[in-house]
Amino acid sequence: MHSVTGEGRAFAALDAQSLGARLQEIPAVAERVGPDSSKWKIREVGDGNLNLVFIVEGPAGGVVVKQALPYVRLVGESWPLPLKRSFFEYHALIRQEARAGVGTVPAVYHFDERQALIVMEYLSPHVILRRRLIEGAMPPKIGRDLGLFCARTLFQGSDLCMPTRKRKEDLALFADNVELCDITENLVFTDPYFDAKMNRHTSPQLDAVVAELRADRDLKVEAQRMKHLFAAKAETLLHGDLHTGSVMVTDADTRVIDPEFAFYGPMAFDVGMLLANFWMSFFAQPGHERNGDRAEMREWLLGVAAEIWSVFRTEFARLWRTERTGILYAKSLFEDQEDALGSEQALNAMLAEIWTDLLGFAGVEVHRRILGLAHNADFETIEDPDLRANCERPALRFGRQIAVNRTRIHSIDEVNDLARIIAGEGA
Amino acid sequence: MHSVTGEGRAFAALDAQSLGARLQEIPAVAERVGPDSSKWKIREVGDGNLNLVFIVEGPAGGVVVKQALPYVRLVGESWPLPLKRSFFEYHALIRQEARAGVGTVPAVYHFDERQALIVMEYLSPHVILRRRLIEGAMPPKIGRDLGLFCARTLFQGSDLCMPTRKRKEDLALFADNVELCDITENLVFTDPYFDAKMNRHTSPQLDAVVAELRADRDLKVEAQRMKHLFAAKAETLLHGDLHTGSVMVTDADTRVIDPEFAFYGPMAFDVGMLLANFWMSFFAQPGHERNGDRAEMREWLLGVAAEIWSVFRTEFARLWRTERTGILYAKSLFEDQEDALGSEQALNAMLAEIWTDLLGFAGVEVHRRILGLAHNADFETIEDPDLRANCERPALRFGRQIAVNRTRIHSIDEVNDLARIIAGEGA
Repeated sequence: MHSVTGEGRAFAALDAQSLGARLQEIPAVAERVGPDSSKWKIREVGDGNLNLVFIVEGPAGGVVVKQALPYVRLVGESWPLPLKRSFFEYHALIRQEARAGVGTVPAVYHFDERQALIVMEYLSPHVILRRRLIEGAMPPKIGRDLGLFCARTLFQGSDLCMPTRKRKEDLALFADNVELCDITENLVFTDPYFDAKMNRHTSPQLDAVVAELRADRDLKVEAQRMKHLFAAKAETLLHGDLHTGSVMVTDADTRVIDPEFAFYGPMAFDVGMLLANFWMSFFAQPGHERNGDRAEMREWLLGVAAEIWSVFRTEFARLWRTERTGILYAKSLFEDQEDALGSEQALNAMLAEIWTDLLGFAGVEVHRRILGLAHNADFETIEDPDLRANCERPALRFGRQIAVNRTRIHSIDEVNDLARIIAGEGA
Repeated sequence: MHSVTGEGRAFAALDAQSLGARLQEIPAVAERVGPDSSKWKIREVGDGNLNLVFIVEGPAGGVVVKQALPYVRLVGESWPLPLKRSFFEYHALIRQEARAGVGTVPAVYHFDERQALIVMEYLSPHVILRRRLIEGAMPPKIGRDLGLFCARTLFQGSDLCMPTRKRKEDLALFADNVELCDITENLVFTDPYFDAKMNRHTSPQLDAVVAELRADRDLKVEAQRMKHLFAAKAETLLHGDLHTGSVMVTDADTRVIDPEFAFYGPMAFDVGMLLANFWMSFFAQPGHERNGDRAEMREWLLGVAAEIWSVFRTEFARLWRTERTGILYAKSLFEDQEDALGSEQALNAMLAEIWTDLLGFAGVEVHRRILGLAHNADFETIEDPDLRANCERPALRFGRQIAVNRTRIHSIDEVNDLARIIAGEGA
């Protein structure tokens, strides 16, 4: 159980000094860290882009305290961002835990709406998955865990399962997450495809291929069709930012964090963004071979992508057959009419559509991470710009290929073969 | 301008007696009907299914007063229905007038939220379009007027045009119209395809074809895919119940009424439901030949369907080129890059998708009007059950054909040919 408050003093950003005194008032914290805040060790760790994050440790244990700021931390007060994102993160976390199961996201101990503050489980010795992949680690459970997480959260947040009144109320609740949707709508789907102010790319090495992509009519049209789907297909509650930087792992445990971009959108978005980040890691590996060859790692990454999609399909089908209690594809029309095959036909059609759409979202995600504002460490940590560009270039070509040909690509094996072929061509 | 109030006494259903006294307090009414309510003529006309409707006439003119009841008028208190539908109707009417233009819907004079009461323009000598079509009349302007109405309301309520924050706020506002969406979700997309309690059909004449349709796996799956689109694709503000009974006409004027089912859904839904009602009228005409042959009328109806779709496409394309100010298919990616062809390519793709989907919605609409709860007068006014069944049977076959083959039908001419062929086969 967790506690919630919307009362109390006006919003005030925390700092390591004030934090102890402020947190001591919260029983949920004192319980877990210890009553005497003078015995607490508090450090600010940040989460990079948007928020304040502190780790509080004491005799009894530790907690993480995450507080939204009224602006983008990375950029500063010149880019205001509503505190309410903390409200959406809280609501997404408790729904994800209910749907994917305890231990798939950090447990929430306390939410303070006015302070835009969430006190949650301190995950240790967990490390951000993206960092582990850069190091060449192969956490064994992630394929299965992430496939299950996607299938369970996406299925159970939709009209396939949820009472439609609750889904529509939830849709209205998250429809207010406008600013964070706006970030995705602009930074992911549009800016990378023209010379937008905040864009950057490895230059001059990529200038030629960037010009080529921005002149690519089919690609731009497809990216906008994906944006249309993202904005209009309010199918289920998405994580909204499900990349390898939003996953913390040990070899034994996988947690999905930071769902502040949560809103109702198309199922294929979460899955496509997630797979894209494994494919990007695949293309980035040659940039990290200082400490040894990454050939095995690269095959392992393609295997993880295949496993995520296969586990997703299997679990989605299981839920379809056993927990299809919503208003869509009602059993009264199929199973109850001795026509289970009808419901299998509908399931196949739906999975085929998710597949086609996730390829579009994946291609766009690759592009925005190399051409847009928010790059990812897989490439950014490759210091030599020539080496980095030689990893990014084939990734860009790969993204274009799967986005534009998404209706003509049959299976994930073909996508993985495409990745090998395009990477092999180098340049 | 119109007045709005949410204050005042608790909800009380109106009657012809109390109405005068109650309305006299409303300046917007007194202005238009005359100050002295003793000089008013008040009659209840009903709108058939859901609400109370009064016409109030006086020395200065007339108004229509529409009040929601807390239940379905047609069925009684055993079927409760929220008063709030009046709120959604009001909000839809003012948006439609702003988007399609003054004179496309009844002008709103006054809205009383607590009384669930809208005072609006009295349309006279307008008649419900469906009735005119049954009589064999050919109102000359409807094809063009309805095509324009659909293009303008559907385009301007979407992310193609509207500031996305406003659209998301509106989406949240209308997401609360749950009960009326629920009626559509069940009565339109599901009940007709199994032996649901409230269904009825011309029996025994249609029993065989009904059994055939309910055993038709491809049809049931397709109907549920359309339901999925209806429930999840929150693309624009729909009328939500746009059939020929929701249109009032004279030869010179066309008004769209009764948008209480308004909510955010797929553009193709309004257009598909509307076209379906012209195709049903086409199939019903042989049942109304007592007063003369209807061959010309039937061809005219197919022509109107073709005109609606052609006018819709032309106007939608004009708006696309001139008023595409939303977040989708931004000009910064196309026109501003000397790539107007890119935006034409996207427009063609979008119209192609609307076309494919509207055929699915149209097919389902035909089925639910013949097999479900809410039948339509085109067929219901054919008294001889054998004659009625001979009109309904080919309509059912037609509905199945366009729904299941919606991705393989190229143009409205082919759909109209299908209608002629299937009607020609008779039985």
